[in-house]
Amino acid sequence: MGSSIPLFSVQGITIRMHITFPLILIWGALQFGVFTGGGWSGAIFGLIVTFLLFAIVVLHELGHSLAALRYGVPVKQIVLLPIGGVAELGRMPEKPIQEFVIAIAGPLVNFALAIILAPLGLALGQGFGGWPPADLFDNLGQLSFNAIFNYVFVSNLFLGIFNLLPAFPMDGGRVLRALLATQVSYQRATSIAVTIGQTLAWMLGLYGFLNGNFFTILIAVFIFSGAEAERQLVQTRSVLGDLTVEQAYSRRVQTLTPQSSLRDAVKLTFDSFQSDFPVCEGEQLVGLLTYTRLLEALDQHGPNVPVGEVMLTDISPLSPKGNLFAAQQRLAENNLEALPVVADGRFLGLLTNRDIGEVYRIASTQPDLIATLKLDKVKSLS
Amino acid sequence: MGSSIPLFSVQGITIRMHITFPLILIWGALQFGVFTGGGWSGAIFGLIVTFLLFAIVVLHELGHSLAALRYGVPVKQIVLLPIGGVAELGRMPEKPIQEFVIAIAGPLVNFALAIILAPLGLALGQGFGGWPPADLFDNLGQLSFNAIFNYVFVSNLFLGIFNLLPAFPMDGGRVLRALLATQVSYQRATSIAVTIGQTLAWMLGLYGFLNGNFFTILIAVFIFSGAEAERQLVQTRSVLGDLTVEQAYSRRVQTLTPQSSLRDAVKLTFDSFQSDFPVCEGEQLVGLLTYTRLLEALDQHGPNVPVGEVMLTDISPLSPKGNLFAAQQRLAENNLEALPVVADGRFLGLLTNRDIGEVYRIASTQPDLIATLKLDKVKSLS
Repeated sequence: MGSSIPLFSVQGITIRMHITFPLILIWGALQFGVFTGGGWSGAIFGLIVTFLLFAIVVLHELGHSLAALRYGVPVKQIVLLPIGGVAELGRMPEKPIQEFVIAIAGPLVNFALAIILAPLGLALGQGFGGWPPADLFDNLGQLSFNAIFNYVFVSNLFLGIFNLLPAFPMDGGRVLRALLATQVSYQRATSIAVTIGQTLAWMLGLYGFLNGNFFTILIAVFIFSGAEAERQLVQTRSVLGDLTVEQAYSRRVQTLTPQSSLRDAVKLTFDSFQSDFPVCEGEQLVGLLTYTRLLEALDQHGPNVPVGEVMLTDISPLSPKGNLFAAQQRLAENNLEALPVVADGRFLGLLTNRDIGEVYRIASTQPDLIATLKLDKVKSLS
Repeated sequence: MGSSIPLFSVQGITIRMHITFPLILIWGALQFGVFTGGGWSGAIFGLIVTFLLFAIVVLHELGHSLAALRYGVPVKQIVLLPIGGVAELGRMPEKPIQEFVIAIAGPLVNFALAIILAPLGLALGQGFGGWPPADLFDNLGQLSFNAIFNYVFVSNLFLGIFNLLPAFPMDGGRVLRALLATQVSYQRATSIAVTIGQTLAWMLGLYGFLNGNFFTILIAVFIFSGAEAERQLVQTRSVLGDLTVEQAYSRRVQTLTPQSSLRDAVKLTFDSFQSDFPVCEGEQLVGLLTYTRLLEALDQHGPNVPVGEVMLTDISPLSPKGNLFAAQQRLAENNLEALPVVADGRFLGLLTNRDIGEVYRIASTQPDLIATLKLDKVKSLS
C-alpha cells in the first residue's frame, strides 16, 4: 500500500505508518490547540488523544491479524492511514467460520478494552465523571486531562460498534457475509451483504444530505464504494477463477531486442495496437518494456538509448496453465500493465490488463463461447 | 448530451429538456409543499418558482446563443439540466473579443431583467416589501405569492453575479480568459484563468469544509473540475493541433471480412492486442466492428452470426492528412473507439482513442521525436 514507514513488529507482523499518517496527528493538535482554543497545552492534549486513538486502532487490527494467523492465513502487514488502520491478509480465509472469527476479532478487542478500562477508571476515581453514563460524553471534545480515560473508553465503544455496521468495508460486512454464507453460496452471500450495506449507505447519505452534514455523506460514499469494490472483487473472482492464462493471453506479439532503440519502441507503439513489449534474444525472453517504463526511460535518457539498458528484468513470467484471477491480482499488486507468458523456457506471448478485461466481459455474458474457443498457437509476427 | 426531449425553438435554436430535468421540478414542489409545510398550495408555489427560475436560465442561455450567432458561431442546442442550462456551440469563437461578448451576454441578460423588473414591481405596489433592500431577502424561501416578483428579481441578480465568478465552467472564467488573451497567448491565458478559478474553488471548498456545508463543497468540486477540464481541452488542442492523423494511426491492422463470424472476431480480440476491426472486401472498406458493437451483437445474436450483418456501416472515414485534434473530437462526439483511415478509396489503417493517447503522451514531453518519426506504410498483416 503506497509509501509507508515500518514502525515495529508484533509476532512477525510489521506495523507500518503511511507517509500521510502524520496529517491526522497535526489535525489532532490543531483541533485542540487552535479550534478549541487550548493553545500549546491543547495541542499536546490533541497529540496524546490522537495517539491513544491510534494505539486502539493498532490493537483492533492486531485482533484481526492474530485470528488470521491462528487459521494459517498469512498477514502481510498492518498499515496506519489517517482514516484508520488496515490489516493486509496474504489470502482470503477458506471457510465462512474463519472469515467470521477474523472479522469479529477486531471489534471484540475494543469491547474487551472497554470492559477492562471501565472498572479501572472507576477504581482510580477519575475520568467517568459520574452516573448516568450520558455524562461520559459531556467532557468529550473538551480539553481535560481528567477526561482521557473517558475518551479512551468511549473511543473503544464507538470503534467496536461502528465497525460492526453490516456493510463493507466495515468488519460487520464480513461478519454478515460469513453468517449468510453458511446458508447460501459465497457469491450470493456477498451479493446480499453488499445490497444491505449499500441500502444502509443510501439511508446514511440521505440523512446527511437532509442535514447538510458533509462528513456523514463522505462516510456514506466510503461505505457504498467499499461495498461495491467487494462485489466487484467476488464477481471478478467468480468469472476469472475458472479460466486459465492460456485462455486470455495475446499470441500475436511484436517483440523487441535489447539492441532496439527506444525510438523503435515508440514507432512500434504508434504503428500497432500493442504498447507493452517483451524483449527477446532469439527464443529467449530477457526483459519487458512496458509502456510506463518506456515513457519514464524516454524522459530520462531520450529516444536513442538501447531497450536493453532500461527494460524491466526482475519479472517472473506467468505459466499458461496458471489461474487467470491470480494473474490479474499479480498485475494489480505489482502495478504492471503486462506480464510475459513462458512455458518450458519458451516465450509464448503477453498477458495484459486489457486482455483480462476483454475475456472478463465476454465470459460474464457468454461463458460457453470461451470454453469452445481454441486460440491459435501463433507466437510472433515480427 | 445524453437523452433529452425537444421543447421549442427560438431563431432556429432548439431548447431541449434533459430527461432528468423533471427531478428539479419535483424537488421544488417538495421543498415548498413538504419541507416548508405548505401542503398542496405550497407544492404549486414550488413548481411556479422553479419554472420561473428555469425561464430565467433559458433567457440567460439565449443571451449566449444569440451573441454566438452574431459572430457566425453555430449553436447546436440549449439543454436544460436539473442544475442549470447549457448552450452548446458548434465551435469555439476565433477571437478573444468574440469569446468575451458571448460569455458576458448571459449574465447581462440577467442584469437587464433585474433592472426592468425592479421599477415594474414597485409600480405594481407589491413584491419588494419595503426599503432598505435587505428586506428583499426576508420573504425568500417562504411561501408567499406576493414574493414571487421579489424571487425573480433576486434570482436574476444572483444568477448574474454567480456566473461572473472568474472560474470555469462559470461564464466569468471565459470572460477572464478572453481579457487575458488580449495580452498573452491563448494557452497561457487559459492556464492563468484556470489557476485563479481553482484557487477560488479551494477557498470555497475550505470554507465549506470548516462549516461542514455539503453544498458549498459540491460547488467547489464542480468549479475545480470544470476548470481542470478546460485546461485539459486547451492542452490537448495545443499538443494534437499540430499533428495529423498520419502521425498516429495504426498500420499493422488485422481485418475481418463480412463473412467472418463473431466467434472469429472474439478469437482475434483475445489473440491480438487489437479490439476494433475494419471489415474489408479485398482492398475495399465496407464497415467497422468496434469492441462495443461486438459485445452488443454477441448478446443479441450469439457468436455464429456473420460480421457483415452487425457491423457499423454509416462511418465516414478519416483522411491521413486530417488534423488529429479534430479526429479526437469526432471520436468523442460520436462515442466511438476507432475510425478507419482511408485515402483515394484505399483502406490504410485504424485510428483508436488509444493511438491518440499514446501520441499525446509522447508529444507532450518529446515533440521532436514525433516530428522525426517515419512510420511504416505497412498496411495489414492478416
